Amino acid sequence: MPVGTLANVKTLTPEQLRATGAQMVLANTYHLHLQPGEAIVAGAGGLHRFMGWSGPILTDSGGFQVFSLSSMRVLDEEGVTFRSPRDGRTIHLTPEKSIAIQNTLGADVIMAFDECPPYPATREQVAIATDRTTRWLERCVQTHRQPEQALFGIVQGGVYSDLRRTSAEALRSFGLPGYAIGGVSVGEPVELIEQIVKVTTPLLPKDKPRYLMGIGTHRELAQAIAAGVDLFDCVIPTRLARHGNALVQGERWNLKNARFQQDFTPLDPLCACYTCQTFTRAYLSHLLRSQEQLGYTLLAIHNITELIGFTQRIRAAIMGDRFTTEFARWLTPPSVSGK
Amino acid sequence: MPVGTLANVKTLTPEQLRATGAQMVLANTYHLHLQPGEAIVAGAGGLHRFMGWSGPILTDSGGFQVFSLSSMRVLDEEGVTFRSPRDGRTIHLTPEKSIAIQNTLGADVIMAFDECPPYPATREQVAIATDRTTRWLERCVQTHRQPEQALFGIVQGGVYSDLRRTSAEALRSFGLPGYAIGGVSVGEPVELIEQIVKVTTPLLPKDKPRYLMGIGTHRELAQAIAAGVDLFDCVIPTRLARHGNALVQGERWNLKNARFQQDFTPLDPLCACYTCQTFTRAYLSHLLRSQEQLGYTLLAIHNITELIGFTQRIRAAIMGDRFTTEFARWLTPPSVSGK
Repeated sequence: MPVGTLANVKTLTPEQLRATGAQMVLANTYHLHLQPGEAIVAGAGGLHRFMGWSGPILTDSGGFQVFSLSSMRVLDEEGVTFRSPRDGRTIHLTPEKSIAIQNTLGADVIMAFDECPPYPATREQVAIATDRTTRWLERCVQTHRQPEQALFGIVQGGVYSDLRRTSAEALRSFGLPGYAIGGVSVGEPVELIEQIVKVTTPLLPKDKPRYLMGIGTHRELAQAIAAGVDLFDCVIPTRLARHGNALVQGERWNLKNARFQQDFTPLDPLCACYTCQTFTRAYLSHLLRSQEQLGYTLLAIHNITELIGFTQRIRAAIMGDRFTTEFARWLTPPSVSGK
Repeated sequence: MPVGTLANVKTLTPEQLRATGAQMVLANTYHLHLQPGEAIVAGAGGLHRFMGWSGPILTDSGGFQVFSLSSMRVLDEEGVTFRSPRDGRTIHLTPEKSIAIQNTLGADVIMAFDECPPYPATREQVAIATDRTTRWLERCVQTHRQPEQALFGIVQGGVYSDLRRTSAEALRSFGLPGYAIGGVSVGEPVELIEQIVKVTTPLLPKDKPRYLMGIGTHRELAQAIAAGVDLFDCVIPTRLARHGNALVQGERWNLKNARFQQDFTPLDPLCACYTCQTFTRAYLSHLLRSQEQLGYTLLAIHNITELIGFTQRIRAAIMGDRFTTEFARWLTPPSVSGK
């Protein structure tokens, strides 16, 4: 499977995003359901036409945002009930409802509605969530009405290897077009993330896309790719940009730092993005110090390009059988590389 | 003189701005002096290189922002003393200092440091400010060291026609490469703006650029061009965008309005800008309702394109001797046109 990266595209135009090398866009079912509502997206002719993005799109199930953003939520076998933070109305989200919304939105890849337990959680709590995720997947598959949309299942199991195995085996029996590893990066130490990914990825079919949700840093990407992961989504590049941080060759720089104020070199002289080809570190530092929106936009363009460029170089290295040697820095334990 | 428009470019990349048809960019001396400081801009090789804009740039004198943004300001014959809203330090701005800063910034057109009286103001207050503006211009001319930068004088005189005449005649004696009409749009009724422009513009040399500062709406632009004005700057297109308002064929639409939520037509089907060529009113409405930065950016692209397109059509009409007939709607009194 080719290495792909889903980009969080806040502030960028589709044109700017395309130029970063991003192949696929992730759209949030939860946010789109609340505003503008899936009926309006369907009225526009689906998500691609609504947002002006002709490339592939993936929608998440909405479940993760319910857990992370909503108060007053009640979880039971049927689904989740919560209050909209927008207008306070009560919303009931179930596997059937999530798939119906995603069918209406019209993305190319849609995600099963799962239960993502927090970290830390007891083995029993995680076991209950994992079993429920399997039962919910059954309901998702039954509801799914658009065969041209690829429905991916999501492996849960927290930090418990045996539960990950149970979950992966249950999911495989559905013969889905793709599989995701969920329930990572929910607060657990980075070593545990690597361990989960290492254990879980080989349990999923090699000939289907394997998608690691909500990851990552350069290190996490390299480790996960080494384990066999094909697809990622992550808010890091744009979130860092919003805080004035640049990703440069895997390092994080705070551009508001005084040392950049009079640095008239490109952000990354090796980078081909619009930001690096057009502006200096000093100018970016000035925009960020002035809290000019343009600063965040330019930084997002660079950070996404940097992260996608990293995966492109890995892809080339894999093709040339040079991955583990060329990227050894990212594949060795953090204590050794100093990262 | 060709009709030109200075664009306020907040949130846009130079690339996006160029595509709107904008010919020239206005940069604020006041803001640049406070952050990053003119020394850093000079270190970058001047404003053009610093901000990645190869077209012409104009800097204002900094005086207007001192009046509108600073507290604790003291005005005397020497200049203005005020506290920086950024760090509280005391800053002294004089004609000499303003020109020195602008010489360092390196714009193509620089503006004289003037005193802009508020509205309403007594005839005596305005007369004092107008005379002082002339004395300050003398000091600006004496200080100016960069002959490749065109120094424009600024006519003051408030709403008093005889003071406008006195000011214009005093300025003409300097034989400057261009002249601006200042002290308009400071709170006076729109009829008075039109009257001031009508009276003042013919007092300035026809063979030099005549620049009306801080204007305007479609109507104000058309009226001023009819009076002989060549150059404008205005925050209206981007300020409207920040508030979710679109300029469409001279009208203002609030895109958050419910009627746009399911309107899947382009914002302006006649407009060639990226926004109108790529997105629908429904999508823009969605972005603005979601307070997505992208919504403001896309609206700014359109609004600037719309206003510049308006001046381009006027220019073509002037060349074809069709201006007063074709733009009669904008040249008749507001009570008749209903605008």
